[in-house]
Amino acid sequence: MDLFSQFIRNIKDRYLFTKNDRLLLAVSGGIDSVVLTALCRKAGFDFAIAHCNFQLRGAASDADESFVKTLADQFEIPCFGIRFNTKDFALENKLSTQEAARELRYRWFEDIRKVEGFDYILTAHHANDNVETVLMNFFRGTGINGLTGIKEKNGAIIRPLLFAKRKELEDFLEKEGLAFVQDESNLKNDYTRNFIRNAMFPQMAAIYPEVENNLIANIGRFKEVDRLYGEAINRHKKKLALQKGAEIHIPVLLLQRSVAPSTILFEVIKGYGFGAGQLPEVQCLLESESGHYVSSETHRVIRDRKHLVLAPLQPAEKTRIVIDGAGRYDFDGGHLMIRTAAYEGGKIPQELDRAWLDAKEIHFPLILRPWKTGDYFYPLGMEKKKKVSRFLIDTKRSLTEKENTWVVEMNKKIIWIVGQRIDNRFRITGHTKNIMEISCNE
Amino acid sequence: MDLFSQFIRNIKDRYLFTKNDRLLLAVSGGIDSVVLTALCRKAGFDFAIAHCNFQLRGAASDADESFVKTLADQFEIPCFGIRFNTKDFALENKLSTQEAARELRYRWFEDIRKVEGFDYILTAHHANDNVETVLMNFFRGTGINGLTGIKEKNGAIIRPLLFAKRKELEDFLEKEGLAFVQDESNLKNDYTRNFIRNAMFPQMAAIYPEVENNLIANIGRFKEVDRLYGEAINRHKKKLALQKGAEIHIPVLLLQRSVAPSTILFEVIKGYGFGAGQLPEVQCLLESESGHYVSSETHRVIRDRKHLVLAPLQPAEKTRIVIDGAGRYDFDGGHLMIRTAAYEGGKIPQELDRAWLDAKEIHFPLILRPWKTGDYFYPLGMEKKKKVSRFLIDTKRSLTEKENTWVVEMNKKIIWIVGQRIDNRFRITGHTKNIMEISCNE
Repeated sequence: MDLFSQFIRNIKDRYLFTKNDRLLLAVSGGIDSVVLTALCRKAGFDFAIAHCNFQLRGAASDADESFVKTLADQFEIPCFGIRFNTKDFALENKLSTQEAARELRYRWFEDIRKVEGFDYILTAHHANDNVETVLMNFFRGTGINGLTGIKEKNGAIIRPLLFAKRKELEDFLEKEGLAFVQDESNLKNDYTRNFIRNAMFPQMAAIYPEVENNLIANIGRFKEVDRLYGEAINRHKKKLALQKGAEIHIPVLLLQRSVAPSTILFEVIKGYGFGAGQLPEVQCLLESESGHYVSSETHRVIRDRKHLVLAPLQPAEKTRIVIDGAGRYDFDGGHLMIRTAAYEGGKIPQELDRAWLDAKEIHFPLILRPWKTGDYFYPLGMEKKKKVSRFLIDTKRSLTEKENTWVVEMNKKIIWIVGQRIDNRFRITGHTKNIMEISCNE
Repeated sequence: MDLFSQFIRNIKDRYLFTKNDRLLLAVSGGIDSVVLTALCRKAGFDFAIAHCNFQLRGAASDADESFVKTLADQFEIPCFGIRFNTKDFALENKLSTQEAARELRYRWFEDIRKVEGFDYILTAHHANDNVETVLMNFFRGTGINGLTGIKEKNGAIIRPLLFAKRKELEDFLEKEGLAFVQDESNLKNDYTRNFIRNAMFPQMAAIYPEVENNLIANIGRFKEVDRLYGEAINRHKKKLALQKGAEIHIPVLLLQRSVAPSTILFEVIKGYGFGAGQLPEVQCLLESESGHYVSSETHRVIRDRKHLVLAPLQPAEKTRIVIDGAGRYDFDGGHLMIRTAAYEGGKIPQELDRAWLDAKEIHFPLILRPWKTGDYFYPLGMEKKKKVSRFLIDTKRSLTEKENTWVVEMNKKIIWIVGQRIDNRFRITGHTKNIMEISCNE
């Protein structure tokens, strides 16, 4: 069967999409995406192409862009293009160039898809990309999921060429006499890929001539193993992860007697902010005394006699106190005093327990309540919002301090982290005429 | 914790053996096995060492042998040695040198163990051997089991150093100031290992500095995944592999709707002589008409309307005929004639349908029955036993001939594969006084 027939058959057999779907093709101009474009055109699909210029390789990047535009013109298909300041975006967001490019690319594709009414985004990943991804996962360390490779369908993203080898795409391109650009990149990920592709693979093929087919077949097998694994894990979770209100209780002895204690434990906690790196620490709790615990950003695993208890970092809201005017308000952490006064440009108090805010910006009622996951605010002096959880970590609060942190909130906006920091939007400015003072435990 | 403490702890924690067990150490004289010897000596274990000279490297092999003997003398521990004509054995048995050496080695260790009353055989495989084995499996193509590495305890064989890295063994050796030999080999397996060890690993470590630890951690995880996988497979087998007398029935539709059709199908049939290479062919039966089938040495998978039926190549024993003295015995394949006579050193007949046996070795009753899976005998001229299934393949019998093969058995020992080969233990020798002649269809 030729590549085109296989392409059509695979889409049909695997229910990837139908002829009625509108498709957006991610096209770099390299061999793979040019082949995908040609195949979709030959099939008469309803599609457009989208090209990102990441501006990482100067004139070469611009040349790729022109190539893709010419290709689109020639084929008479709509083409979307964009230029990214990838380096800046990476710096601003503390991402690697690789991560930044990926983030920008997929976000933009998704935007066009929604705005322009496409059903799916198609990428040209093929079998060799898939094998390389699996090998990278393997060497980086992985569970079974990392051996199943790139997902063929993931939300609105479809990779309809995963069945095909690079060689098959090259042969097709040559036969069709199509032009393409050489995709040159020195991103870390591509560097590793290129090493695996150009150095490791030929060496392995000299020893195992079938290595390419073997690794492709591995992926097929591991996909099935992963599904069987998922079944087994779900079965164990039913017995070993017992929901009790907001908590999950894990019976230690039963877990230890199971066939796969570490794996099951990790599968239970990983949805709650715990990374694989924390697993050894959590496993120590199996041998520890009651009261020991390990925390993620949002949760905690506590050893409690015969159980590990997985619980949200702060217990469900203790209470909410409505502040409906000046006066004294008692709460778990003590009491607040609220008063207003004219502001005459005097020095703003530096004590953490006393907040001065611009009264013009504030109206009653206010709410006094413990902070919770998902809370954010604009810390005094910052233009950007910040998660309260992150703020508490950055200011090195102890676990108890975190638990006893309260906030004053107006209309869903936090105006003060009690005893710690006010929100920038409510600060005293040159225009402030009246202040609202909130003090704690005075 | 130092290597010695880890060694002791690991043996205890993993219940590998106790201080009362008598151990036989496989010692090549290389770093790993010298360390194992030193550790066992330091621990005060009751052990001896065994060294194989495979005579593959001329004087170098003999030098290794001397080194090990000197080591044993120096430590005052018993030492067993043997020289193998590995190349000849490989040729005779159509094995690679690698396979031959392995076969010879483990068989000999097991012989000594039984004869000399040792409890366990210890080998010095370590964490890096394990990682290399897993990588070799990965590149050759594997299921989940191949990612779990070398078994720590497998029957009487124990590998108590799998927890340790090569570097740790080298450091120990240096600290203890022990000598060793350089193990140089050009066996295929070792060639691949050396490539992985000396070429691929350093390259990967330049990209992923933690690659060694990552791959070791992978093995731990995949061991647990493998156990969960085993659970899931057993559960599916209960529903999808229905025992009906000597047959197993697999409902096609249910199998196809399961989460892992190929994997489950393979797990059902693999115990019956089917290799992974035959799986695609067997999978075709899921789409084929009734009557199509695929055979292994001993079994057949037949498409039978809504089922795949896994059945022994010959239907359950057609019959058993008891031979309780000289005379004629009719059976499905014709008839046998039994007679005895004095042997006067005449020429032994060469017709396959006429067997001459040493009457002194035989007593009635004999059983005449179709051969079955698991049957073995000592083919005339061979010192080694052989499976009848293998014998039928090696002598290139057709499917029908295999199905119509009968054997004559005495007290669970096969004495004749009817019309094909007698058993070596019952052959005519210089001491034979009387012969028993069995002829078929004369």
